[in-house]
Amino acid sequence: MPSTYLSFRCSVPWLIISVEAVFVVFYFLFSDMLTFFTYSDLQDVSHMLIIGFGFFLTFLKRYSFSSMGLNLLIILLGFQCSILMENVSLFLTGGMLGAAMNVVAVVISIGAVLGKINPMQSIVMTVVEIVVFCMSKLINMYILKASYLVSMMHVHLFGAYFGLAVSSRFSEPPPRAEKNASTPKSDLLSMLGTLFLWVFWPSFNSALAEEKDKVIFNTCLALAVSAVTAFALSGLITKDGKFRMTHIHSAALAGGITIGYAADSIEYPWIAMILGLLASVISILGSLCLQSCLHPTLKIHDSSGVHFTFGLPAVFGALAQVIFWVMEIQTELPSIGSRVVLNIGASCFTISVALITGLITGLILNLKLLKPIPVSKYFEDQMYWEFPHLAVGF
Amino acid sequence: MPSTYLSFRCSVPWLIISVEAVFVVFYFLFSDMLTFFTYSDLQDVSHMLIIGFGFFLTFLKRYSFSSMGLNLLIILLGFQCSILMENVSLFLTGGMLGAAMNVVAVVISIGAVLGKINPMQSIVMTVVEIVVFCMSKLINMYILKASYLVSMMHVHLFGAYFGLAVSSRFSEPPPRAEKNASTPKSDLLSMLGTLFLWVFWPSFNSALAEEKDKVIFNTCLALAVSAVTAFALSGLITKDGKFRMTHIHSAALAGGITIGYAADSIEYPWIAMILGLLASVISILGSLCLQSCLHPTLKIHDSSGVHFTFGLPAVFGALAQVIFWVMEIQTELPSIGSRVVLNIGASCFTISVALITGLITGLILNLKLLKPIPVSKYFEDQMYWEFPHLAVGF
Amino acid sequence: MPSTYLSFRCSVPWLIISVEAVFVVFYFLFSDMLTFFTYSDLQDVSHMLIIGFGFFLTFLKRYSFSSMGLNLLIILLGFQCSILMENVSLFLTGGMLGAAMNVVAVVISIGAVLGKINPMQSIVMTVVEIVVFCMSKLINMYILKASYLVSMMHVHLFGAYFGLAVSSRFSEPPPRAEKNASTPKSDLLSMLGTLFLWVFWPSFNSALAEEKDKVIFNTCLALAVSAVTAFALSGLITKDGKFRMTHIHSAALAGGITIGYAADSIEYPWIAMILGLLASVISILGSLCLQSCLHPTLKIHDSSGVHFTFGLPAVFGALAQVIFWVMEIQTELPSIGSRVVLNIGASCFTISVALITGLITGLILNLKLLKPIPVSKYFEDQMYWEFPHLAVGF
Repeated sequence: MPSTYLSFRCSVPWLIISVEAVFVVFYFLFSDMLTFFTYSDLQDVSHMLIIGFGFFLTFLKRYSFSSMGLNLLIILLGFQCSILMENVSLFLTGGMLGAAMNVVAVVISIGAVLGKINPMQSIVMTVVEIVVFCMSKLINMYILKASYLVSMMHVHLFGAYFGLAVSSRFSEPPPRAEKNASTPKSDLLSMLGTLFLWVFWPSFNSALAEEKDKVIFNTCLALAVSAVTAFALSGLITKDGKFRMTHIHSAALAGGITIGYAADSIEYPWIAMILGLLASVISILGSLCLQSCLHPTLKIHDSSGVHFTFGLPAVFGALAQVIFWVMEIQTELPSIGSRVVLNIGASCFTISVALITGLITGLILNLKLLKPIPVSKYFEDQMYWEFPHLAVGF
Repeated sequence: MPSTYLSFRCSVPWLIISVEAVFVVFYFLFSDMLTFFTYSDLQDVSHMLIIGFGFFLTFLKRYSFSSMGLNLLIILLGFQCSILMENVSLFLTGGMLGAAMNVVAVVISIGAVLGKINPMQSIVMTVVEIVVFCMSKLINMYILKASYLVSMMHVHLFGAYFGLAVSSRFSEPPPRAEKNASTPKSDLLSMLGTLFLWVFWPSFNSALAEEKDKVIFNTCLALAVSAVTAFALSGLITKDGKFRMTHIHSAALAGGITIGYAADSIEYPWIAMILGLLASVISILGSLCLQSCLHPTLKIHDSSGVHFTFGLPAVFGALAQVIFWVMEIQTELPSIGSRVVLNIGASCFTISVALITGLITGLILNLKLLKPIPVSKYFEDQMYWEFPHLAVGF
Repeated sequence: MPSTYLSFRCSVPWLIISVEAVFVVFYFLFSDMLTFFTYSDLQDVSHMLIIGFGFFLTFLKRYSFSSMGLNLLIILLGFQCSILMENVSLFLTGGMLGAAMNVVAVVISIGAVLGKINPMQSIVMTVVEIVVFCMSKLINMYILKASYLVSMMHVHLFGAYFGLAVSSRFSEPPPRAEKNASTPKSDLLSMLGTLFLWVFWPSFNSALAEEKDKVIFNTCLALAVSAVTAFALSGLITKDGKFRMTHIHSAALAGGITIGYAADSIEYPWIAMILGLLASVISILGSLCLQSCLHPTLKIHDSSGVHFTFGLPAVFGALAQVIFWVMEIQTELPSIGSRVVLNIGASCFTISVALITGLITGLILNLKLLKPIPVSKYFEDQMYWEFPHLAVGF
């Protein structure tokens, strides 16, 4: 019977409890206090995650409870798992702040499969993704000699491609599904999330940086230019020159993501502006190409467009950093050559790991054990939430 | 005629003006600048109060203006009154930050009688409660030898039991009253409030602490575990394993409240996690027991469930602190025995004062002079707010 | 044909791109890094601008996308322009923080013409206003010898009167236009914006001040008293003693604006309280007088009431500062006389410049080239935004 099939009573709570129990045991065995961090940075990152991303994802008209509620559940589980990883792997030096920043990968990935996976699948995916991302960071740092900052900035790359790979293992919803849409109200809530992310993005980029002021100045400029460019491009692309909210959503943050890699080495504000402008162009043109060509061909459905919102700007950012280094070679020849190669290697490695582990995770998530939901039940809050108020009218 | 009976024109404005005038006179006579405080802490507490609690209380479908607007009025009156009390009573050392934190008691109490008291009653209740709470803090500090931090953490205890006692003096609304309900939209707004409270709770707990980093780390963990546990328990309790938003609301913060007492003496993260987990269990099981047994027996109606959201976790936190101390006795015998007794005494004293003065306040609020509203007018914005837009359609 | 007349496809995007291109060139030629600033102050100001004002202006029922989206566009363009002005004019010392604060002028002005100007007009107005305001600040500082702090506090004065002057050049919407109204939901969103502004206002006033603690304490008190007074007055003014949300909106912030000028020279808290009280009275009584007498006579339509929300409290604040100085003359005779005259001169100069340049800007904005929209299309999102979801129902 479908109704018993869809009840998560005997599965989700016990899964949460077991995961939590394992965490407590691991903390008991391994974990010390992580007391070195700047509270204001940690608070800004938690603001971004819980309020920013919480609302950023609430654009589906019948999925706002899940977007916000399950987002909270996943962030908190991911956070605990991430503290453990940063703590156990003695080589990671991010402490509590790094732990919070790792969780961004999970939130981005969830965006790609939003509405298509059930809470059990989300929990499994969260734990797997945090573990794999931390290991990929370790390899980036100790084998590919990337700095902690750069290997952390790969969080967008990793999150986006991991999410896409997982998403490719799920059936596509029918095009123009009535539930897979937003309303003006939900778009506005989602815009609120974008604004919060916008305000806190300079904190995210500067949290681990040394020359904080420079990073903040460059990030602010790049974010400003990319949001402004998003308006211009949106007006050019739509039929009668109107703006489309989803364009603003996806491109407003592109500049911040792109400049994350190189913000501390940019000396002139106009370079930051150009980067922001190009990031926005790449994000919006990317959204056109991907949605009309690549994704239909590969049968990937990307619920909140994480590919062009986070993935492409991050690829561009990693590339831009390499180009900056190449331009510096003229002045200081030795050693930069290998640094460039290693850096390109780190990006490619991160993407490959994300894609491969994402595919494997996608396969695992489709096991019968995890009760994957049928396409007809995608994007519906009522699968997971009680609505005592529905009787009295919405 | 009911319409004249219900007009507050000749009462509310003049009451506000008189209270304000009294404040100005008192400030003129007694008050100096309170300039020692950390602005970031003060700002975080005011964020919690005005935005966090403002939205936390907006879950009633026809009471959102009052929840948010009257909450603002009461916070600001309470804040002024509280600065005066901290300033006049030379023995209190909290300054402006302590003054802001006192106001949490009022906001919690208001939650218990939300929708049932009119603005006049709210104002009287606010002033009485702030004065009584500050005096109870003084007695806690100078007779029961509690630290300023611990006597401040009693704010949740005091607020919850004061509110419950006041509420017991008001008629119960009929069960299943149509107006005493939420809609998905209002639940979402209320969740937004919870998220803000969640993000700022570590600031609240650490504001007065000495080892801030430790307190923040422990509070974050306890909050994370208690919110995660809330999902698990909610799934176990409801009929078909779905989550219920009100469970998440009430239990997500339980860990933060519980750990407020002992956060600076917990050395191992797993202890903080266990505390968070138990706090969440107590809060959710408490909500089941209280709503089905205790409250109906005692004829107490608790509009936003402050008893299990703030009261029970605070009782548990106070108890947990005592247990930690008892366990330490083995190492350092002398003097801790009396400290434990005094500590239990302080909690019991706070609860007793809250209950007794709450009952008295409840009696005062029901005086004809303060125009108590009839049960049929509970939970309605239109009693207190003009809606020029209603004519043109909602 | 009206439809081609109203398409902004060939104008808005290209205008944005040209402005952005000009900015990049100017940054390339003139601008260095601006790395001296306190990040927490900058972040608070950007919070105020993007989230606070973004929501503060979303009260029109069919204009929420534009209020929030175009507000973002304008803030970001204004910010870039403002950094350039602070940087080019070597005499301004505000750096990045000052640049962000300048933008408040634009946001206030936009409030006066909200819903009546198209994106092209907004962009032109933003650039003109930032340039003029920075020049007026320069004259204030170097000819009228005002401090940087005081000339920055003129931002409210300038913004309000510039906006009013621009607004006077636009046709008035018919009274009781159905679209020019709010709904309870949009009022609530707008109240959320007010709450954010409230919480961050002490940061704004103290950002440039030297005695930060004193400024914060005084601002908090003045804000608290003015919001409380707003409730009292609203109850007195409305027909049956109910509160009106728009009164709270406009008067809650009055105290903060008024005290911006003199916050660092007020020694006793009761003075700050009296100032807050009077500011609120002026704002609410002003709203009555202006809306019923002055504005209809002058045919000025002030969409979001910036005249009494920002203009009058700022005039009162400038006046109050002069009065404080006059009272000090008795103690220290010499030189204060001329300071008072110069100070009054600075305020009058700022208002005059705002009015004159505002009128000229209003004339420019009505050029055919900028495609002014007809009155029948005022206050409508659908002019500027695509609503793919409208087909499936709101």
